Parts: sequence; structure tokens; C-alpha cells
Amino acid sequence: MPPSSPVTGASLLERYLPIRATSEALCRPLAVEDHVPQPVVYASPPKWHLAHTSWFFETFVLARVRPKQSPWHPRYAYLFNSYYETVGERVARQHRGHLSRPTVDEILHYRQHIDECMVACLRENLSHEVMELIELGLQHEQQHQELLLTDIKAILGGNPLQPPYASGQVATWNLVDEHRATGMQDESDWLDMEGGLHAMGHEGAGFAFDNEGGRHLQHLRPFQIQRQLVDNLAYLAFIEDRGYQRPELWHAEGWDWLQAEGIEAPMYWSRDEHAVLGWAHYTLTGPQALLPGTPVTHISHYEAHAFAQWAGCRLPTEFEWEAAQSRLQWGQRWEWTASAYLPYPGFRQAPGAVGEYNGKFMANQMVLRGASFATPPGHARATYRNFFHPPMRWQYTGLRLARD
Amino acid sequence: MPPSSPVTGASLLERYLPIRATSEALCRPLAVEDHVPQPVVYASPPKWHLAHTSWFFETFVLARVRPKQSPWHPRYAYLFNSYYETVGERVARQHRGHLSRPTVDEILHYRQHIDECMVACLRENLSHEVMELIELGLQHEQQHQELLLTDIKAILGGNPLQPPYASGQVATWNLVDEHRATGMQDESDWLDMEGGLHAMGHEGAGFAFDNEGGRHLQHLRPFQIQRQLVDNLAYLAFIEDRGYQRPELWHAEGWDWLQAEGIEAPMYWSRDEHAVLGWAHYTLTGPQALLPGTPVTHISHYEAHAFAQWAGCRLPTEFEWEAAQSRLQWGQRWEWTASAYLPYPGFRQAPGAVGEYNGKFMANQMVLRGASFATPPGHARATYRNFFHPPMRWQYTGLRLARD
Amino acid sequence: MPPSSPVTGASLLERYLPIRATSEALCRPLAVEDHVPQPVVYASPPKWHLAHTSWFFETFVLARVRPKQSPWHPRYAYLFNSYYETVGERVARQHRGHLSRPTVDEILHYRQHIDECMVACLRENLSHEVMELIELGLQHEQQHQELLLTDIKAILGGNPLQPPYASGQVATWNLVDEHRATGMQDESDWLDMEGGLHAMGHEGAGFAFDNEGGRHLQHLRPFQIQRQLVDNLAYLAFIEDRGYQRPELWHAEGWDWLQAEGIEAPMYWSRDEHAVLGWAHYTLTGPQALLPGTPVTHISHYEAHAFAQWAGCRLPTEFEWEAAQSRLQWGQRWEWTASAYLPYPGFRQAPGAVGEYNGKFMANQMVLRGASFATPPGHARATYRNFFHPPMRWQYTGLRLARD
Amino acid sequence: MPPSSPVTGASLLERYLPIRATSEALCRPLAVEDHVPQPVVYASPPKWHLAHTSWFFETFVLARVRPKQSPWHPRYAYLFNSYYETVGERVARQHRGHLSRPTVDEILHYRQHIDECMVACLRENLSHEVMELIELGLQHEQQHQELLLTDIKAILGGNPLQPPYASGQVATWNLVDEHRATGMQDESDWLDMEGGLHAMGHEGAGFAFDNEGGRHLQHLRPFQIQRQLVDNLAYLAFIEDRGYQRPELWHAEGWDWLQAEGIEAPMYWSRDEHAVLGWAHYTLTGPQALLPGTPVTHISHYEAHAFAQWAGCRLPTEFEWEAAQSRLQWGQRWEWTASAYLPYPGFRQAPGAVGEYNGKFMANQMVLRGASFATPPGHARATYRNFFHPPMRWQYTGLRLARD
Repeated sequence: MPPSSPVTGASLLERYLPIRATSEALCRPLAVEDHVPQPVVYASPPKWHLAHTSWFFETFVLARVRPKQSPWHPRYAYLFNSYYETVGERVARQHRGHLSRPTVDEILHYRQHIDECMVACLRENLSHEVMELIELGLQHEQQHQELLLTDIKAILGGNPLQPPYASGQVATWNLVDEHRATGMQDESDWLDMEGGLHAMGHEGAGFAFDNEGGRHLQHLRPFQIQRQLVDNLAYLAFIEDRGYQRPELWHAEGWDWLQAEGIEAPMYWSRDEHAVLGWAHYTLTGPQALLPGTPVTHISHYEAHAFAQWAGCRLPTEFEWEAAQSRLQWGQRWEWTASAYLPYPGFRQAPGAVGEYNGKFMANQMVLRGASFATPPGHARATYRNFFHPPMRWQYTGLRLARD
Repeated sequence: MPPSSPVTGASLLERYLPIRATSEALCRPLAVEDHVPQPVVYASPPKWHLAHTSWFFETFVLARVRPKQSPWHPRYAYLFNSYYETVGERVARQHRGHLSRPTVDEILHYRQHIDECMVACLRENLSHEVMELIELGLQHEQQHQELLLTDIKAILGGNPLQPPYASGQVATWNLVDEHRATGMQDESDWLDMEGGLHAMGHEGAGFAFDNEGGRHLQHLRPFQIQRQLVDNLAYLAFIEDRGYQRPELWHAEGWDWLQAEGIEAPMYWSRDEHAVLGWAHYTLTGPQALLPGTPVTHISHYEAHAFAQWAGCRLPTEFEWEAAQSRLQWGQRWEWTASAYLPYPGFRQAPGAVGEYNGKFMANQMVLRGASFATPPGHARATYRNFFHPPMRWQYTGLRLARD
Repeated sequence: MPPSSPVTGASLLERYLPIRATSEALCRPLAVEDHVPQPVVYASPPKWHLAHTSWFFETFVLARVRPKQSPWHPRYAYLFNSYYETVGERVARQHRGHLSRPTVDEILHYRQHIDECMVACLRENLSHEVMELIELGLQHEQQHQELLLTDIKAILGGNPLQPPYASGQVATWNLVDEHRATGMQDESDWLDMEGGLHAMGHEGAGFAFDNEGGRHLQHLRPFQIQRQLVDNLAYLAFIEDRGYQRPELWHAEGWDWLQAEGIEAPMYWSRDEHAVLGWAHYTLTGPQALLPGTPVTHISHYEAHAFAQWAGCRLPTEFEWEAAQSRLQWGQRWEWTASAYLPYPGFRQAPGAVGEYNGKFMANQMVLRGASFATPPGHARATYRNFFHPPMRWQYTGLRLARD
Repeated sequence: MPPSSPVTGASLLERYLPIRATSEALCRPLAVEDHVPQPVVYASPPKWHLAHTSWFFETFVLARVRPKQSPWHPRYAYLFNSYYETVGERVARQHRGHLSRPTVDEILHYRQHIDECMVACLRENLSHEVMELIELGLQHEQQHQELLLTDIKAILGGNPLQPPYASGQVATWNLVDEHRATGMQDESDWLDMEGGLHAMGHEGAGFAFDNEGGRHLQHLRPFQIQRQLVDNLAYLAFIEDRGYQRPELWHAEGWDWLQAEGIEAPMYWSRDEHAVLGWAHYTLTGPQALLPGTPVTHISHYEAHAFAQWAGCRLPTEFEWEAAQSRLQWGQRWEWTASAYLPYPGFRQAPGAVGEYNGKFMANQMVLRGASFATPPGHARATYRNFFHPPMRWQYTGLRLARD
């Protein structure tokens, strides 16, 4: 949540409808049936995303600006609240894929209704606080656009038929970028970074989440960091060197995890003797041969850590990453760091439901920095702190090496 | 599987398309989205039923009659095999609701293709064995019609919006019959049955499953049995007499089950202070006030047993039921019996995949006799042995009292 | 519970102390530490058995005869009630092995106290009802003697050190009998049994449990049954013929069970290239080479059924067994039958806690007939109905073939 | 593991036997039976601790110094390896309480044998590397002494009889210290700490674990920290203010945890209307009334965080704690910090099994600083980094408040 971002009603109005339309555009290549399933508990059905992002505006903006207006449907709060305890009861997360109703069409009508109300509001004189909530709602919508792409990939890629989502362009996304080779990791391509005090965190105008501020100092020791992300070819060398069979490379919980799940390669990889590297992977354009030079993706933090151990290196901390970021190639994969997701100095959770946005997740998760192929344009930021549990790998995750 | 049913190609041809059309008619009131979810592991998505019943004909009939014809789709066997180990690998049962593809339209095309092939076959000179397999396929399709209704009820009735499935008539089903009052259980209405040897099981012409034959003798002691099913009002008296709080009425596993699940009434019941009996229940026409005189339904075997204990009676055995059936009102609810699902004397599992139809489930299940509101017309039979695990209650189950 | 057994105070007094002493004698070869663990939820720690059987007399006899006497310890009822809901709360079954206290010595003192009180009572003029409860307590104690042996075997046999329990004689048990070869199963040794009406169940004087009465008629078809139990050599042929890899031989739930548990041989078997048949098994005298001619043991009902399918036969029903038993060699292994554990005609659960003894388990279990090496002398009976869930195999279970 | 500690054979020899004897002294008040159970998976049986610490010396010291000597028992490595993947297979952690053998006596003999061998070694000329391993073994033994006390508390305190472990003194522990009141938390007693660069981590002579070094700089902002730990009275105010019922105070996973476990007070607390504060708690001397002024203990990280949120404060980071520690009262409770357990700059896991000691646990755990009542004298250190998963509370955990 933005502590001091100078939002204006005019700029919000200009961005509101295009951002909202993008979510719908992302669902357009889908069959109606594709909007319904939840194949894994951490992903959500596309129609749930479409409704939840609208409920967010209805609950946090419209209920404040139009307190006398009834909600569009008395049960939608129960159906589409994600995790806001302060706002009330809700469907258990693991049951989202059990709900065939409301239908996609009903949800699109709901979206249209919310959009009409929101546009009317945006033409009025809004308080600064409400404008910040709208800004938050738009940032939230964009976060769900990335989740839409990763959750659609989980639904279609987990289906034995492995149907493609689309080919070519969807909204501003060029799907070919997902597996485009952008350059091999180069053993010699290390940046030297000096130690000392570095200022970190968001400051100034422009939106940022509450967890990115405030600006503060971190003392770093000199380190080296690679300009490029680790690519498929480098990762394959780790697999072929029995990386998944050597417990000494893994965190204890990572080793237990891979044994229990039978993991031996990144998510979506499958052996394919006809492919150039002997492996294929499912992409949004359907199964493709794995390419050298493409950043490895769909790995857990455990895998990222084990790879770095194997390479005789380590993951950078989020502070090292931020200090070096202006000299790095980044933006294709969310990069697992060596940092746990913890509050910055001076962080305080905002009162009320909006305070649940970020702060209550500061336990047991790791920070990812950068952005990915699936991040909406304009949503990335050098101070952005993404976070997931160590075993999660359905996001476009990747890694970069550092060393002392 | 029928040991000796005199099926003819002509009669099969006459029945084939109407039976197949009925399955599709049952899905017509659904939204596309309703075809997808699997809210509980024992139910299946409607589109899975539509495809699986077609795969059954493709695998057990067409692959035999047209051995050179390729399957319609190379992965459908993997997707739509239910439990036939002999036929190969398949999607794990609990993942059926994760599959958005093939779409409903693609499955309807698949059905159409299978129907065209089947009709062509049916016009040929078929062996007796193949005709029996087709007969089995039609009986199988009818079983899935009942499952379609109960699984649709689970999908819509488990949704917080509780949308109705339809009102009035769907195919041959008059939906009002589901909760129609047909008469109160009458304390004095006991039939006296004589003991001695009774012949049991199917014999003669007409289809029967392998588990219903052969005809054999059972020795019974004299007993009494009620003409009517237990109705809602009688069941409510059990609830109000703290039936769900008294362990001495329950099987040990039933008691553990109700504690673990927090059960205190039949499935689909909810308290409703405006309703005549203080309770409503979800039906295929939407939520309705509970009526006296309607047979209680959606109860587990554990509940049926506890109710009978409370009433100072017991459940009839399947043999008592069969001996008495000509004098009973039956057909509205599947009636839990006191009999475990075990082979009749002389039962032998048929060789090959078709032998997996019934025999391999003869462990840990209880027999239900009769038929229900949801059973397709013409599918019921006095020797029919339905079977489910004791905690299952999403079927149209009910009970009838017996005593010595 | 005995409906009409003519027990007398004098005969009870004569048997009471020897039976009680036998339980303690069974524990004498144990280390103190061996009395504590519960390696699997269905087994109990030896010291729990010693205490629970005493609690049984304290609760069901002494509390009735000496209503003003306080219990020996106010928390023992909580600790040592097994499953009597009517009597009150208790430690969850799976936590019995978490309790180091009371110590073995404290429990032996408790036993001594109970015995002193019981002997004093037995010298008084007791009502018939109390004498029947004492008889039940002695039968109960004997059942726990068999459980002591099987649970001790689970504790020591599951330990990687596989220490022997004892060698030679313990109380009346000659431990060598456990794996003594008593004769090979003989393919030609079938008994012919006539069909018709057979009277079944206990009647007359002498103790029997409530589930064995009353005497009633069963109609049987002619059948054949083997005089001998299936032995290790015959069972090995099933293993070597890939019996554990062929789903068509198994109940569906049996197949799921063996896949989930990784089962490929009876419990306690392990490959041993030095042994005559290539296999060893853990016995109460420690690991021993598997012998031909010894009845196979420690198999589940699923395995017994699959073996019978493989042999082209079936398991006998409990009624067939009882009809044939006088001509069978039996008593070495509890024999899985094809019968589910269900009430006999006319069975009624006794009121109060004693009614929980047998009746509430009549769901999901299968009947075993006969007796085993571990059954105390004098405790076996031709009408005895033992019962366990199909996957259980830590008891001395075995099987015998039948066919039509 | 000590990078540069100046250990000498003479000093090791002087400390070896007293430290080893202390472990045995801690078990002396126990009944034999108390050495066996494992009531929760994170605790271990006392006899396992006695054996495992000996196996540690046998494996990491004796096998190196006496490579030709056979292990004391060929299966002990399998039984008593805790988590060293590099050293081989082992009993699954959750099965430690299933093992009655080896007996306590056998383990004491094993200890004696190891001690004789070790003392003989210590009289020889040992390499620096071996001496460091012995030092590590002694530190390891002391860590297990604290675990012995907490695991004994779990075994006896989880028993419905709640027997005391001992009264008065055990080895160097005065058991009364466990619940001694040491002063109320004082709202006004805040220390002001200056910001800027602070040097952190172990350096110099004296033993330290590998995770405490090397010395490095951390930049801190000015903060305040309380001199005292939070006490029972302060914690009770949190409970009475509905702290366990207000989701906004909790991490999301903490809230899920307390709902799932039904948590509403610290571990070992129970309501007691006769006690001064209305609560009792189990201690090693048996149940005692809760006292004001005693530091609250047996709380999870989730509870510590929620309490701090409720108090309008936060937990200190481990760096703040270390910067302030010389002015704090510490040593009674392990203090949950706001820091995740992560490597210090420059940390590298040692090669081989000893490298598994600390580094592989650097995921999903939180740092605790200080020491506790149960920590052996001489084992505490200002740079010590203890670590546990957030829900763990069977250790002597507590908390201290900080604020900006």
C-alpha cells in the first residue's frame, strides 16, 4: 500500500478501463470449461480471478464511496474474498474449483457493473485515501494478471492433452517470449560489486507496496553477481551431474520435499528423445523443445539453492540484488534470493483489511526479485518484493548466481 | 453381466439411441461450467460421465467388432477409463475435476461418432457375446444416468448459491417426485413374513448383472418388515431425541465418522426456521421445505443402522427384502440393508476386463435394494444389488425397518 | 456375552488366578522397555494390556459388587478404557505408546490389588449376572493374551535388531509351534460336503460370546473344502507366479492397499538367500528360515482372497467352515473366511457398556474362524467368530481353500 | 563448527567425562519406562539421546582415529544417526519411540565403551582437526542435555498423570529456577539503542558454531528494547484481551495453525480456579500455579509475534538483540527474534557429514537468541544462534519487546 504516492483521479481514470480489459483479454483464448478447475490448491480458477479482482474494488472502494449501495450479490463476498479475515467468512481456498456458478457470463456482467460504478466514482472528487485504494486495486488487478497466466498454464499444462493456450500475441504478451533464448549463462561474466552501505527500498513518487518502503541502509560485503540468469543448458548440466540425487547440495527440507514428490527436473519438463537437449517442456504455446540460452524456469527455492551449491556459488540476497540491479539483465524470470520475506525496518501493518495485503505473510516465505515474462508491462519495479514458499514452482521463477 | 439373456440385435438397435440420448438430455439444463467440477472424490464431472460411457462402448464393443479401427483419440482411454486395470493406466479418480479439456462440445462429438459406429454395428450380424456386451453397455449407461443426477446434485447443492438444476420435467424424470410426500411411516403397518427356505437371485430371461445370479436358497427366520420407507418426520424424531449424540446407537466406525465430519443431519439438510418442520433441504429444483411423508434420503448406512437401533428394530437383510418385495412399496429410495456385498453361491468373476465390473468391489461395501427416484425407467429389478461404502450418502439412499 | 452359561462361583474361583497369572507370565521374558511402545496403531503396549484387563474387572465387576469402594486410581479409567463410550472419555488409541506412566511395577501392583478384591468377591454369594460378567472378564483376559503375543511380536519384530522374545516354553505356549511344519497342502485332499440345511451357532452350556448365538439354520450348496491350511510352499508359488503384480486377482481395495503400502509378501517375511526357500521370517524365537509345510501366516484378507483366486478356488464362508470343521485340521491359524462380520438372526446388543463388546464392530470387518498358535488353551471353540478389518495381518492369520 | 578455536587435548580431557556424566545424571530421576516414548515427532526418547550422542563420537571421532576398530554394534549407526545423509540410512525420525531395544542398560554400556575409547584417545597426540571434532561432540552433547530436559517434560507433562520429573536439584540444574519469578515486565523500562553500524557474529578464541561466524557489519536504525522478558502476567493480559481470537494480530499461517490445533494459551497451561492467576502450568517439578513475574514460556513464534503486535511493538531482530545484549537480562528463555535463520555473509557449509550440522536447516526456521533455564552452564554465548520452526513451543521459548 502506497505511503505517499501522488495519484490523481485523472490518471486513474485513464488507466482503469485498460487494465481491467486486459484481465478479460487474457481469458479470451480460453474455452468456457478452462475457467473452472483448480488443479492445485495454490492456483485459482480463471473465473475466480475475474470475480475476485472485482470484489476487491467493490469491497475496498465502492463500499466506502457508496455506503448505501447494496452489494451486487449478497453471496459474492463469501465466494470471492481471498484471505481477508477482517472482512468475513469465505469459501475455503481448496474449494474454489468446486464452484461452477456463477458462470463466466455472470462474472463478466458483474465486472461490467463494477466497472460502471467505478468509472462513475472516478469522475467524482475523490479523497486521497480512496484514490490510493483505487491505485492499490489496479496494482492488485495486475498481480492477478500474472497469476492468470500461471494458473492457466497449470490447468492446461497439467491436462494429459497439453493443449496450447494460444499462439502469438495475447493482449500485450508475445507468447513466444516465454521460451525465447536470450543468451547463455557465461561463466566469466561476473560483475564486481563493492561493499559498504547501500540505500534500499522504495522512496519518492510512484506507487509501491507497503512492504517495499521505507528507504533504509544495508551494509554489504563486496560480492560478485552474474549479469545473466541461469539458462536451461547450465541447469541440465546440474541434472546430469546427479544434482537431484546428492543430498549434500540440498536444504534438509528440500531433500525431503524432492523425495516425497519424486522431483527430478523443473516443473513442466519431460524427457523427449527427439528434442535437441533430450527434453521438452510445456509452454503456453504448447509443448516445445527445451532450448539452451533460455533462462531456466519453474524451479523451487530448494532447487535454486541446490543448483547454486552445486555451482560452488550461492543465491544473492535481495539487498545484493537491489544494489546491483541497474547492471543486470532482468525481467524474464522472478529470481529466488537468499532472503526470507521479513519486514523492512520501520514497517507497520496498516489498520483494517488492507493491512492484511502483505504483512501477514511475513513468515516462511522467500523473497523473489525482478519480474517475469508474465508480469504486466509497467508493473515491474527495482524495489518490488515478490514472495513465495520455498517449494512453489508454478510461477515463472528462475535464479542468478552470486559469490563472495 | 448377463449369463443367459436372450438379447437380439433388433431390440438393442431400438433401445440404443433413446438410451444414449437420455444421458445428453440430462445434461441439457446445465451451464457449460457445471460439466467440469468434481466437488467430492466419489462424484464425477458430468462431462466425464458423457465421455466414459462412450469409451465403454468403444473399448468393449467397437475394439472387438472393428479391431482395425483406431480409437477416436489416442488419449481418451487414459482420460475416461474408470477403473479397469486390465485395460491400462488412467487419470487418478480424484483428478477428474481438474480436466477442462476435452470440452463439452468435443465430448458430444465423440459421443456422436461412437453412436454412428455403434448403429452401423447394430445393423450387422453380431455374435451373441457382442450383443451381450452391448446390453451391458446400455445398462451401464443407465447406471451413469442415475449418477449424473446425483453428481449434478452434489455440484449444485454444494455451491453456496444452491442454484436449481431445473424445474418440472427432464427427460422422463419429473423432478417434483424427488421430494413428493408418499405417505407417513405407519407404526402399525408391519408385514408378517414366514420363515423357511426362499429362492433368491435372478433367473430366466431378461438382463441381470453377474452379481444377481444364480438362483439359490436362503433360509430365513420369521420376521416383520414395514411396507413403507421411513419418512422425514420419523427421522426428525430420531434427531430430536438426540440420536446423533448417543454413541450406543451407532457402529463404532459410524460414531467416529460422525464425530470427524461433524454430522448431525442427513446430507443437504439445513435448519430453516421458516419451514414447516424447521428444516429445509436442497433438491434438484432448489432448496425446499422438508415435508413429512417424504421418504428420508441422503443418509449413510451408519445413520440407517443407528435410526433402526433407536427405533428398537433393525435393517432387513437383502434376502428378507427380496422375499418380501412383492408386498412392499419400493422404488423411491435405495434401501440400505443389513447385508454386506458378497458373492452369491457359485459366483465367478468373468475373465478379462468385463470381469472387473462388479466382482472386485466385494469388500467393505453394503448392499442396497430397491431403486430410487433417479433410477431410469426400466432399469429397476427385484433382484438388483446396488452397493456402496457405509459412509456414502450422496445417492438417493433411504431405509425401511424390520424386526424379528 | 453368554446368554445362558451355567457358571458357578467355585469354577470361576478355580480359574481366576491361573488365567490372570498367565498374562503376567507372558510378559516375564520382556525387558521393562518392551512394555512401552506402540509401533502400529492397531497394537497396544504390553503394560496397557496388563492394566486394561484389570480395569475391565474393576469397572464391570467390582464397581457393581462394591459400589462404595473408590477406584484404585482416579485417572486409570481414563488411561485404560479401550473403547467403551458408555463408560466415559479415554486416551486416544494412537497415544497408548506415549505413556511411560504408570510404570510396569505400578501396574503389577494394580493387578495384585484387583486380584485380591476379585478373589474376596468370588468367595461371596454372587448373583448370576455378576458371575457372567466375571466369566466375560476371564474370556476377555484370554483374548488379550493372544493380543499380547501378537503385539509383542510387532514390537520386537519391527525393531531393526529383531531380538527374540524367548526360546522354548512360555506359560503353556511352546514357541516352536509357531513355525512348526504340520504338513503340506495337498492338491488332492478335498473334503466333499453335502448341501442342505445346517444348524449354526452356539447353543447349550459353556461360555460363548453374544455374537455366536443363537443357533439357526443356514442353507448351503454342496461344496468342497481342503482339510489342510495353505502352507508356505504353496503361498510361495503364488508369489513366484507374480500374484502380487496381477490386479485381476485382487479386490479393488486390496490392489490399492498393496500399491500404497508396497506389499509383496506376508508380514515379517524377508528375502534371505541362505534360507532353504530363499526367505526368512521373524518369529517369537527370532528370525528363522521359512519352512515348507508350515501354514502361511500374517496375511491380510486381501491376500487370502487373491491367493484363492489365483488357485482357481475361493475362501469358504464361515457357515461352510462351521459345517465342515469337525473334519478339518484347524487351530494353528485364524482362517479368513468369505463372510463379513454381521449379526446372526435374532442378535440384539445387550444394554449398557457390555453391549459394546462385540456388536458395534459389525461393519467393515471380515470373520475369521478357527484359532491359532497364540490362542490360549481352552479358549478355542467351533462357533467362535473372530473378526478383523481386511488389511490387518499382524495376527496369526491364514487361509484354507474351498470350491463349488 | 569452530573455524579457529584453540582447543587442547588437556582441556578436552578435563571436560569430557564431566559433560558426559551430566547426560546420564539427567536421566537418573527417570523410570526405565520414561526412556522409551516419543509423544511428538519433534521430541526424542531419552535413551535415544543417550545413544545418539555416543554414536556421534564413535562416527566422527573414533572412526577417524581408530579406522580399523569395528563399531560397537553393526546396527547402531542405523538406529542412532539423526539426520546425516552422508553417513547413511537411518530409522525414520517418527519411529524413534517404537524401539524398545537396545535397552537403557545396553545403551549405558555402549556409553561406557565409547567413553573408555575416547579417554584413551584424548591421552594421545591428536590432530587439531580431531580435537575440533571432539569439541564439537561436547558442544553437541550439551545441546542434547537441553533437549533431554525439554523432551522429558514433553513425555511427563503430556501424560494425563502429570508426574513430576524431580524436585530440587538435578546435576547443576536447580529445578525451582524453571518457574521462578524474576521480575515483572516494566512498561517504562526501555533501553535506547543508537543506530549505525554494529559488528556482529563470533570472533576470537573460544568455541562457536559455524553459523555464528564470521564477524561482519550490520547497519541498524535507532530502536528501543526492553530490559526484561515478557512475563506471565503481561501475557495473561493478552489472552484476556482476546488475543487468540483476533486474526489481525497474527501471521496468516499462525492464525491457521491456532485454528487447526485449537490453541488458546501457551503449551502446558491449564485453567485452575484455585491458582492465583486462574491458571496452572506443568513444570519439571509437577503442576504449579502460574506466577506473575515469571517469564512466559512455551510459546510459538506465531504467539510471540501476535503478542508483540497486540502490545503495539515488535520482536527485535537478532542483530538488534546482539547489539543490545550486554545491557539485557537474558538467559532464562530462548527469545524468538524477527530474524529468519539464514547464513551470515561468507558462510560456507563444511564438506562432509559435519557440514550437515547447521547449514542444511537454513530454510523456514526463525532465530532464537539468548539461552534458557535448561541450557547447560557454560554453553550460552552472546553470538549463539538457536533456531526452530515457527510453530514449535516445547522448548523454553519466550520473548522480549522492541520498537522503533
